[in-house]
Amino acid sequence: MSETEKNGAWSTAITKIEPNRVAVRGYDIAELMGRVDFGTAVYLILTGELPEEKIGRLVGAILVSSIDHGATPPSCLAARTVASTGASLSQSVAAGISAINRHHGGAIEDCARTLESLIALADVNGHSLDEAAAKMVANINSTGTRISGLGHRLHTQDPRTARLFELAAAAGLTGDRARHISAIQALERAFAASGEPLPITVDGAMAAVLADIGIDPKVYNGIFMIARTPGLVAHAAEEITREKPMRRIDPVNHAYDGPPARRLR
Amino acid sequence: MSETEKNGAWSTAITKIEPNRVAVRGYDIAELMGRVDFGTAVYLILTGELPEEKIGRLVGAILVSSIDHGATPPSCLAARTVASTGASLSQSVAAGISAINRHHGGAIEDCARTLESLIALADVNGHSLDEAAAKMVANINSTGTRISGLGHRLHTQDPRTARLFELAAAAGLTGDRARHISAIQALERAFAASGEPLPITVDGAMAAVLADIGIDPKVYNGIFMIARTPGLVAHAAEEITREKPMRRIDPVNHAYDGPPARRLR
Amino acid sequence: MSETEKNGAWSTAITKIEPNRVAVRGYDIAELMGRVDFGTAVYLILTGELPEEKIGRLVGAILVSSIDHGATPPSCLAARTVASTGASLSQSVAAGISAINRHHGGAIEDCARTLESLIALADVNGHSLDEAAAKMVANINSTGTRISGLGHRLHTQDPRTARLFELAAAAGLTGDRARHISAIQALERAFAASGEPLPITVDGAMAAVLADIGIDPKVYNGIFMIARTPGLVAHAAEEITREKPMRRIDPVNHAYDGPPARRLR
Amino acid sequence: MSETEKNGAWSTAITKIEPNRVAVRGYDIAELMGRVDFGTAVYLILTGELPEEKIGRLVGAILVSSIDHGATPPSCLAARTVASTGASLSQSVAAGISAINRHHGGAIEDCARTLESLIALADVNGHSLDEAAAKMVANINSTGTRISGLGHRLHTQDPRTARLFELAAAAGLTGDRARHISAIQALERAFAASGEPLPITVDGAMAAVLADIGIDPKVYNGIFMIARTPGLVAHAAEEITREKPMRRIDPVNHAYDGPPARRLR
Repeated sequence: MSETEKNGAWSTAITKIEPNRVAVRGYDIAELMGRVDFGTAVYLILTGELPEEKIGRLVGAILVSSIDHGATPPSCLAARTVASTGASLSQSVAAGISAINRHHGGAIEDCARTLESLIALADVNGHSLDEAAAKMVANINSTGTRISGLGHRLHTQDPRTARLFELAAAAGLTGDRARHISAIQALERAFAASGEPLPITVDGAMAAVLADIGIDPKVYNGIFMIARTPGLVAHAAEEITREKPMRRIDPVNHAYDGPPARRLR
Repeated sequence: MSETEKNGAWSTAITKIEPNRVAVRGYDIAELMGRVDFGTAVYLILTGELPEEKIGRLVGAILVSSIDHGATPPSCLAARTVASTGASLSQSVAAGISAINRHHGGAIEDCARTLESLIALADVNGHSLDEAAAKMVANINSTGTRISGLGHRLHTQDPRTARLFELAAAAGLTGDRARHISAIQALERAFAASGEPLPITVDGAMAAVLADIGIDPKVYNGIFMIARTPGLVAHAAEEITREKPMRRIDPVNHAYDGPPARRLR
Repeated sequence: MSETEKNGAWSTAITKIEPNRVAVRGYDIAELMGRVDFGTAVYLILTGELPEEKIGRLVGAILVSSIDHGATPPSCLAARTVASTGASLSQSVAAGISAINRHHGGAIEDCARTLESLIALADVNGHSLDEAAAKMVANINSTGTRISGLGHRLHTQDPRTARLFELAAAAGLTGDRARHISAIQALERAFAASGEPLPITVDGAMAAVLADIGIDPKVYNGIFMIARTPGLVAHAAEEITREKPMRRIDPVNHAYDGPPARRLR
Repeated sequence: MSETEKNGAWSTAITKIEPNRVAVRGYDIAELMGRVDFGTAVYLILTGELPEEKIGRLVGAILVSSIDHGATPPSCLAARTVASTGASLSQSVAAGISAINRHHGGAIEDCARTLESLIALADVNGHSLDEAAAKMVANINSTGTRISGLGHRLHTQDPRTARLFELAAAAGLTGDRARHISAIQALERAFAASGEPLPITVDGAMAAVLADIGIDPKVYNGIFMIARTPGLVAHAAEEITREKPMRRIDPVNHAYDGPPARRLR
């Protein structure tokens, strides 16, 4: 056992701290500031490498797509419930993060695993993605199992999905660089052909794009946490500022009273 | 009491959810995606209004500046300690967020409050910021109190501070739009003149810039949480992947073994 | 700086761990097991000293009194909301604990501080507790402030209060050993005399008894956490076992379907 | 769908709240107070039924056995790390609870599952527990797998184990009422006979006793949380009271400076 091991020393490959220098994955943060956007920095810290600029912007678009989903998700309700007891902002946000699990946010990783299986299935059998998807959907429909990333309770045609695929194509994710996108689109076609149409959700679109840009599915729930933290901060702050402590928070009967619909200039 | 009140209905001004439409502060997320960066979306969700594009980018630079600070901060150690017990990613990250409080991250809000006091003091007395700062520093030095946002244990000249002020100036924060920046720089000059030089930390620089762009100090700790979540995700994922469960995590004896120093192209 | 300080050594006065021996506040746990009940062990670990046996039992009765309060409290709702997302038991319980704050559980400490003030006021002015209480209540009623520990939304005559005072008297808390109990009873009489009757809640009764047995108010919220953890475990486990993931948890419309009312033999 | 289902109504079998009455599993809390100890109430709320008095006391002894284990466990370090940032008591304790997972506390459930397998194996094959244990240990030793509940890094002969079995026997857990205790003792004998002696840890002893008194292994981690919460409260309160904020908490170099070893009278 070496001297350092005896002393319990250990190593991390994420960030190096020296006097007057903080470097993430080798890059000085002061140099990154203003030259790369936050999506790019997130890609860097999670994968170890800087992405192409357009890929970094795509990550940013993914983060924007999931920044909030109103007062209904359990992460929001947990954060507000804790905030209503007199908790600090961090205690409230931590409770919200604690609700991001397999059934909330987890569909992104689940869907990516399905897409990986579908691609492997097609490759092994020498089938097209459409052929492999037709088999998979037949199996799903006959066994009554469910699949993550297709079919949403509320959004029958989520505009975030179309927008994300549009941005992905513009960022160069086409052909061989878009195998997971192709896979989920093949699944959507196969469901439609089966008579049980299930549109791709924003979770499914995120799964396909994140897999195509080379991020490990193990951190997809983490990416959802990164995206949603601003929403949790906003809800906790609103709860603390606007509501009475210890109110009963109805998870269904709430309304939006913010600015009316408006367009980007 | 109205029907809705009896039913416990309540309102939120953050996000409106309708079938096939998610709108944050009135803006359709699908329209925001790819057109605004994450820093801009964070400004929007926290303040209710879209910032100028260059201000949104400045928020992005602030988020990048605090994305991680290695293995030493308590938020990282709490996340890793919990991760080492077999916790999920969200449970680990939530423990990390729980460590962002008055003494960790809180310097940003504390410093902003000081800068507000300094500006009010100068205005009330008809003094310049430098005159007001000299008085405040004399008082601080004579009473032995401490001040947040100036003076760092490790970084004697934090390059992130200079870089943030440079970006702020480039984004148009000068003159009357930079009163908090001017205030903290007056404080730094006053400390230097007093023989007790205390350089502005990145927390102090963030406080000044966030105050100058009109974000409420009540959510600065929330902005720090937003910025640091990617770091917490990366550390928790590294702990889970790379280390044995239940190891003793030494808060001091650890080393960096990631990529060597490298430059942006 | 000594050798140990350089190495970051620090000390704790709670528990000593040696091979084959675990001693809390000096007492071997193996010796405590089976000879003292959990209430006594809680008193020991929080105060540093073993209480008389009857006082330890009184702490146990306090823990029993707050073991659960159904599905309505925010701690229960936070635990269930997190549990419904696929969280582990510890993640769910931690979210529940996170909701125990100033407005939930905090009434115990708040009330104890009020009782301390009342006793100090009486002592300073040479008044009886009834005289001091009458003044305090007149002031409260005229300023419209609220007081913790008296008056409950639901329980107009909480049987746990009467039972706790009965047990306290049986444990020897009478006369000079019951000054906080006398103080809160004086307040109840003063409110009744003022025409605004406010019965003592179980929180108020706990505050008075805990103060009379010499536990520091700083840990009363901690005692509430200790008492309520079994309830949080039971609710989280029931949510996981009995309910579908991601259900909307109505904080009001729920019913009890457990065993009917029954008596201890 | 009934009216109540449409309204999102749901049911819980734990606690019924009515004006002036709180009943856990059918028993009025005011009646339980002072007549049953906390261990008994924990058994009641987790299983739905009151145990015999001696079994309730045995649960209390189990809670006492795990009330604290000094500053080294990750739950304590997480609670102290969060407390050192200026967190509230509940935020600190919640972080500690978050560290109770598979690798910390989880050995109790793991061991109970092993004991269930061993008993099933013996029953199916018509073997004695000793015969089945010999086979299991041979298999464990040849495959190099590990087993929970036997073998401790520090305690080679944990006195809590012997004490718990002694109390269990005194409470009537012998013969057919002690099959899990017999099973773990058979495992201990088989390890000793194999030349790889592994003494039963307190976790293993708890697993065997909890299984023999009929508590579902799914909540054993919850019972560990209930037991350890007082320790977490004590450590968080000591950190807040005694230490400086943001100190580096060494997980190894710490000493005990509380009362010297002393005996129960």
